[in-house]
Amino acid sequence: MSFEPVAGFRFGAVSAGIRKDGRIDVALAVADQPAVVAGMFTRNLVRAAPVDIAMQRVRSGRARAVVANSGCANACTGEAGWKATLDTTRAVAESIGASEDEVLPASTGVIGAVLPAHRIIERVPELSARLSPKGYLDFAQAICTTDRWPKLAQRKLGAGATLLGIGKGAGMIHPDVGPPHATMLVFLFTDAVLDAGEASEALAASCDVTFNACSVDGDTSTNDTVLLLSSGASQRRASRDELSAGLTEVCGELARSMVADGEGSTHVAEIRVRGLATRDGARAVARTVATSMLVKTALFGKDANWGRLLAAAGRAGVPFDPRETQILVGGIPIVRNGAPVGAEAELKANEVLARDTYVIELVLGSGPGDFAYLTSDLGHGYVDVNAGYRS
Amino acid sequence: MSFEPVAGFRFGAVSAGIRKDGRIDVALAVADQPAVVAGMFTRNLVRAAPVDIAMQRVRSGRARAVVANSGCANACTGEAGWKATLDTTRAVAESIGASEDEVLPASTGVIGAVLPAHRIIERVPELSARLSPKGYLDFAQAICTTDRWPKLAQRKLGAGATLLGIGKGAGMIHPDVGPPHATMLVFLFTDAVLDAGEASEALAASCDVTFNACSVDGDTSTNDTVLLLSSGASQRRASRDELSAGLTEVCGELARSMVADGEGSTHVAEIRVRGLATRDGARAVARTVATSMLVKTALFGKDANWGRLLAAAGRAGVPFDPRETQILVGGIPIVRNGAPVGAEAELKANEVLARDTYVIELVLGSGPGDFAYLTSDLGHGYVDVNAGYRS
Repeated sequence: MSFEPVAGFRFGAVSAGIRKDGRIDVALAVADQPAVVAGMFTRNLVRAAPVDIAMQRVRSGRARAVVANSGCANACTGEAGWKATLDTTRAVAESIGASEDEVLPASTGVIGAVLPAHRIIERVPELSARLSPKGYLDFAQAICTTDRWPKLAQRKLGAGATLLGIGKGAGMIHPDVGPPHATMLVFLFTDAVLDAGEASEALAASCDVTFNACSVDGDTSTNDTVLLLSSGASQRRASRDELSAGLTEVCGELARSMVADGEGSTHVAEIRVRGLATRDGARAVARTVATSMLVKTALFGKDANWGRLLAAAGRAGVPFDPRETQILVGGIPIVRNGAPVGAEAELKANEVLARDTYVIELVLGSGPGDFAYLTSDLGHGYVDVNAGYRS
Repeated sequence: MSFEPVAGFRFGAVSAGIRKDGRIDVALAVADQPAVVAGMFTRNLVRAAPVDIAMQRVRSGRARAVVANSGCANACTGEAGWKATLDTTRAVAESIGASEDEVLPASTGVIGAVLPAHRIIERVPELSARLSPKGYLDFAQAICTTDRWPKLAQRKLGAGATLLGIGKGAGMIHPDVGPPHATMLVFLFTDAVLDAGEASEALAASCDVTFNACSVDGDTSTNDTVLLLSSGASQRRASRDELSAGLTEVCGELARSMVADGEGSTHVAEIRVRGLATRDGARAVARTVATSMLVKTALFGKDANWGRLLAAAGRAGVPFDPRETQILVGGIPIVRNGAPVGAEAELKANEVLARDTYVIELVLGSGPGDFAYLTSDLGHGYVDVNAGYRS
């Protein structure tokens, strides 16, 4: 992985002792000049203080900084939590010479503990001193929780401008982010010239087919946040198509990395549903299959258990004729006209399922509605991580 | 467990070699005279042949027999599967002197294999010869698949009449049965005098708060079936209240037994949601919490992780004010006004979570809408059973 700076942005991270293990846990990104900003936030009714505050602040369409921490979600923490986030962003604002409203907070970690703001505030001078155009790797590391690796992706937006995405997320991953309502955290930085309206629109469309189309465990977080900041420092205006393609590629790569890093995950399966009457129908079926515990354990077992695939599809509430269904695993047909092709095909399919990543296609008719969803398998690792996460 | 015969019904079971382990796998229940029947079937679009056939036949409101097998679901088996079920019920009908339409089939086991009807047909004479009023224990044993124990429950319907329920189910348990549309299999036998209309109505209402309010893995089966047969042989007419209370108690006991026997399950949690505007809203929240993988792994870990409970409630799509929520575990408040009560309360709650069964209450407001849902925990046992089920 090799990444390049994004003109107009600097990044840094420190350890403030929020995580018990002493690793870096507070990340700061600063735009040299006020940046254009767009945000997508969790649609969960139960939202953390930093989510509520960031939601309010992105409405202005302008921001100078993002301050994000791991180790504490600052969710379900009432007024004390609210004050802790405000105190943190105020300290950052003073340090970089911005107004408080221009600093966007994000938190991830345990729910129910109040963010220890004073630990962050003490380290803000050091954090500001560490800011550098190449600090994005530290930023990405500092926001990790149960992640096994930091997540970055980059694309050119035409000639002369670039888009860098930084994400985290391995559990409680089934994002459902909307405008304005995302413990997936994703920060996208570009030096292309954008206006706030097109940034919002393009971000929403990209999230819809990437983060909102992937699942580790079907649980939507209280803290999911996606922010896009544009410095405009390249002085190059990206076309609508360039922006849309770039965002979807970067978000898609980050989404795939999150699922690959899904808690206990050993495989990434792309569930492609085709042939339904509508795209929304295809999405509903793909989501139901991708979040089925029986499907996910079968994937862990490397078993082409098409009966579970069909049964999950059949309970999604979307009409199709089971007698007209085809199922392909890595391109190998294992179900044709609703009935099994045979043992030989299934053995070949099981070989596909031993790979790190593969595609499962459910062709449920001849309509135009299709949708693809990324999911991980459900194995002992998931249970180990989540039965003991708080202790 | 001690059970009594139900006047007018005889039961039997044999091994027909459908299961690989040689255990008894075909069960037959016969009414001496045509019985009043009501049925509830899976709402999954992908339905097994025996489900489609039984759905057609219960419409007459009359039946003489139920023939059920384990080891093979006969689902996704096309015309060959359809013929196999028809051949089986025809052989049973001839053996007991009934018409074909009076024999109701049900199957459970692996999806995608055609029922080996000839093996059952060969054993029908022996099966008929074994019928006895006390054969219900054999019947219950023969329909088990991954079940660790057979499931029976019995209640009096007033003085002089009785209701016996026999069920099976440990995986793919998240029934969603409707009239007429259940691999939960449940057979209810009563000697009370019922008419078909009241039987259907009372059965639907009871399923709604029992089988349709319990989940092991969130997956609805292709074969879920609930049948109620009344011989009327007690010559006693049960009152509407007696019938309703008896059915709900028997179905509730069977549902709890299924969840307790849920694949890999070590605890049964009753998720009670209270204080919402509507019962449907409470049901949606209870279902979302009960099927959350993060909640279920926390229960396996005996961890009063109320943040996961609240986060799951918050994504159910039902409005409530997170700041007004209370959460109690075994009666111990751990969240008050949306914020944690404290570490001491959580330690006490963790002690509750070490019990085999307990109640978790989410009080989400002061409205009249409440609903209770049974769920199991998600641990290594579930993964072991389901990553290797077909092999």
